Amino acid sequence: MFNMLDLSKVLSDTVLYPALLQKINQKTKPLGALGRVEEIALQIGLIQNTLSPVLHRPIIFVFAGDHGVTQAGISPYPQVVTQQMVLNFLQGGAAINVFAKQMGFELCVVDAGVNADFDESLWLNHEFIHELIHEKVAKGTQNFLDKPAMTDVQCKEALGRGADLVQQALAAGSNVFAFGEMGIGNTTSAAAIMHVLCNLPVSECAGRGAGLDDAGVQHKIAVIEQAVAHHQGRLNSAEAVLAHLGGFEIAMMVGAMLAAASARAVVLVDGFISSAAALVAAKMHADFLPYCIFSHCSNESGHRKLLAYLNAKPVLDLGLRLGEGTGAVLAYPIIQAAVNFLNEMASFESAHVSEKGA
Amino acid sequence: MFNMLDLSKVLSDTVLYPALLQKINQKTKPLGALGRVEEIALQIGLIQNTLSPVLHRPIIFVFAGDHGVTQAGISPYPQVVTQQMVLNFLQGGAAINVFAKQMGFELCVVDAGVNADFDESLWLNHEFIHELIHEKVAKGTQNFLDKPAMTDVQCKEALGRGADLVQQALAAGSNVFAFGEMGIGNTTSAAAIMHVLCNLPVSECAGRGAGLDDAGVQHKIAVIEQAVAHHQGRLNSAEAVLAHLGGFEIAMMVGAMLAAASARAVVLVDGFISSAAALVAAKMHADFLPYCIFSHCSNESGHRKLLAYLNAKPVLDLGLRLGEGTGAVLAYPIIQAAVNFLNEMASFESAHVSEKGA
Repeated sequence: MFNMLDLSKVLSDTVLYPALLQKINQKTKPLGALGRVEEIALQIGLIQNTLSPVLHRPIIFVFAGDHGVTQAGISPYPQVVTQQMVLNFLQGGAAINVFAKQMGFELCVVDAGVNADFDESLWLNHEFIHELIHEKVAKGTQNFLDKPAMTDVQCKEALGRGADLVQQALAAGSNVFAFGEMGIGNTTSAAAIMHVLCNLPVSECAGRGAGLDDAGVQHKIAVIEQAVAHHQGRLNSAEAVLAHLGGFEIAMMVGAMLAAASARAVVLVDGFISSAAALVAAKMHADFLPYCIFSHCSNESGHRKLLAYLNAKPVLDLGLRLGEGTGAVLAYPIIQAAVNFLNEMASFESAHVSEKGA
Repeated sequence: MFNMLDLSKVLSDTVLYPALLQKINQKTKPLGALGRVEEIALQIGLIQNTLSPVLHRPIIFVFAGDHGVTQAGISPYPQVVTQQMVLNFLQGGAAINVFAKQMGFELCVVDAGVNADFDESLWLNHEFIHELIHEKVAKGTQNFLDKPAMTDVQCKEALGRGADLVQQALAAGSNVFAFGEMGIGNTTSAAAIMHVLCNLPVSECAGRGAGLDDAGVQHKIAVIEQAVAHHQGRLNSAEAVLAHLGGFEIAMMVGAMLAAASARAVVLVDGFISSAAALVAAKMHADFLPYCIFSHCSNESGHRKLLAYLNAKPVLDLGLRLGEGTGAVLAYPIIQAAVNFLNEMASFESAHVSEKGA
């Protein structure tokens, strides 16, 4: 279904790369003095295939989905919080609302598979400033302890719906996409995916999530180990891992990320769940990662190891562990600054400034 | 001269502190899930003595000054670059121009002691978008290898002028101040100050600056050691260290920082030089540091150790080493986000979201 993808190895461009490097190095500053900001400018120039990249209509998709594995007691919060937080997003009261508004992002809240009917009755007594995007594949996944989280058909449907949403935003002019999520239980799903696809011990993948204590983490690890043992032998592709252990919000995000990259848009990855989606996308398409900017290193314990596995350098390291896309949106001004410096700063020549050793 | 200062120990407030903490913890997110952003919100609430802080008219002062110690060959750039970069600032071509514009900062370029006459002749063939603020104490410091960088009178004058500039901005409504600098040779001055005030080996304080090679760094270390040996016995107060080893831009920044803190404004510290100024300010007034937000950890090698000495947690770590206040301004959206989340996010109660274990 992703045969429309044509991801080129942008970071090995042999013509544009040296031209971008020269443009950066001629700016009125010591060589390399803007550090990571210079690297981001270079990356976005390569992604957009230009010496003068522009970021248009930044957009954040927050995919929400429920997880059958919550039945195994892997989260300190009840499943109903997923739907409550969706309503909070629609009312503008969550962290992602505050940050998206501040940073100039369009916020799209997507029901990828929440275990609730978002109908008129829920709408009572609320004032909504956003419309919910209805893309529910099912009312939550199955408990992957002993069943596949979703069917292959459901997985493909989620991937396709994510891609379609991005296509619509691309058509409306967006070329920079942030991806966030909400789903009680989804750090368990992300840790299981990471464990299998990175071949790392579960204990290095599973963390406290929304606030488990030590015993809770041990239980979460045991649940993941039991689940993976149960599905062993059927986890023979990234898509199969996604279907057996993932969530609808994660699968929809994978499809959305791949569609964005295939259009040479910038993919802003958020925290642990979002990075697990990027991991699946990278396993599905080898050329995917150069389109990603990993916005931050989360406080969720597996995230630093996942970033290291992906050879990703996060922009921020603020001890965030909220999800919703909050880290991606918080990092955006630095991404914008990278593009601005490339386009707006004077060169040594234009500003009549002497170079080193001159 | 700073008897107007009344810096209270804001971080030990016993009434406001728990009230702020409760407000933060009632937001619709897992406890502590916004990490450093929560800490910044708490700090600004304490600084402003309110549960609902507001940031007004952010302003960045870039203090420029020249250093006699450049005669000792401690920079790979010629001294004339200081005045060239000042003109670049006034024309809008430097990194700080790009970032200040993006982040909504008013930019004030101050001649604290540049070795140039900024008169009509220099103005030819340039189009300026900023006015230079003329506060020149002298045309550069003396070479501190064998003379005090400045006289006690000059040092007090620089401190007072910095404070006056902040007073004017406070009167115009600013309550958040970023501080940057430009001065060829000033990492040598800052490293010397750090060495004496932190009692750390020069080799842990002096780095590559704007791009020294290994031999250059060794020479810089030798110059600092020789200078400090020469002035030994007269470095008996923070102000004396500032006068003997500092620069006019650093001294003016110290005065400005102290004036900002004394008015309970937020002090955004930039990189290595700016942190050295904060170090001097902290040694002059024990209650100063709680007003500071250390915006980033620079790639200049001494900065990480200086931050550790000050027990400061930088917001960003992007490998910047440019100065000009660039790191402070780049970090600002996160500071603003901290205030916004505190003021705008819903609580569990207001959003009807279940709490942990509910």
